[in-house]
Amino acid sequence: MALLPEPINELLAALNKLPGIGPRSAERLALAQAIVQARERIRSCPVCGALTEQTPCAICADPRRDESLVCVVERPVDILSIEKAASFRGKFHVLGGRISPLNGVEPEDLRIAELETRLGCEPIKEIILALATDVEGDATSFYLAKRLAAKGVKVTRIAHGLPAGSGLEFADELTLSRALEGRREL
Amino acid sequence: MALLPEPINELLAALNKLPGIGPRSAERLALAQAIVQARERIRSCPVCGALTEQTPCAICADPRRDESLVCVVERPVDILSIEKAASFRGKFHVLGGRISPLNGVEPEDLRIAELETRLGCEPIKEIILALATDVEGDATSFYLAKRLAAKGVKVTRIAHGLPAGSGLEFADELTLSRALEGRREL
Repeated sequence: MALLPEPINELLAALNKLPGIGPRSAERLALAQAIVQARERIRSCPVCGALTEQTPCAICADPRRDESLVCVVERPVDILSIEKAASFRGKFHVLGGRISPLNGVEPEDLRIAELETRLGCEPIKEIILALATDVEGDATSFYLAKRLAAKGVKVTRIAHGLPAGSGLEFADELTLSRALEGRREL
Repeated sequence: MALLPEPINELLAALNKLPGIGPRSAERLALAQAIVQARERIRSCPVCGALTEQTPCAICADPRRDESLVCVVERPVDILSIEKAASFRGKFHVLGGRISPLNGVEPEDLRIAELETRLGCEPIKEIILALATDVEGDATSFYLAKRLAAKGVKVTRIAHGLPAGSGLEFADELTLSRALEGRREL
């Protein structure tokens, strides 16, 4: 994974060798550990908020990425999930969490102002919201959609529905409702 | 569940009491058992193919259901999954499986001709394909979309994407790809 800074990559490989630690657990452990241990080397990308050793990060600096498309995620680790899917060629923006009044997280605690600044100086045409599909993720998506629409940018959200390789019997009621509601013409 | 015939309902309640049998397992066991034991009472609805004691089944006979919308599923049990989600008010059509050349299931083995007959005599405006999201389900959906489009009916497919209550880190690569691809304007 060329995307990850070298110290994190090394820790990831080491953790992955431990019994009971799968690739996903290793990723999270490595990131948590690496942030503490390599604090002097790893910092947030000033543009997108990803964890990086260079300024700006490798994705922000890559001229082959589509500048008109920005995918908004909650945490730096979410960028890795989407990069693994290898179907997205735009840029990213890390929000740093989601709106959660019960936990004291208000819109001003997130990197929304930074996103609005990017809208002003980058040729962004579409913002794709890729937040978690729970209540707080939904609330944050709707808040962002309303606030960003006022800036005249197209705001989309990743599809909610049946995961790949699944049958109807494995889906819960809410997932099925959303899958039906979000149906698309073939 | 008023939808299920009484003998199946009784078996379901009994199975659900057994240790280790959850509601979903009970449903499948009950249906499998009931088909064998109550064969003389349970039959296929001649219209939609659902399991029923009456002719036609309760859903086909219900005048409050939207006749212009038909949801195509693989098996009778899939109707229960969608009815539980309680967001669909149209009618159903059971295909009886999916196209699977390796297992010797060809289009003519499925209830596609029956669906085409319904298109001729019911005021159907939209057909929603709610098949499994694996390779065979996809192939069957595309085959049906092509064949039914020739009849001038709108063909849609339930959304593929992130299930409800999930984060990006739990989604596999293919699911994330489809969620990004199927993104919708907010």
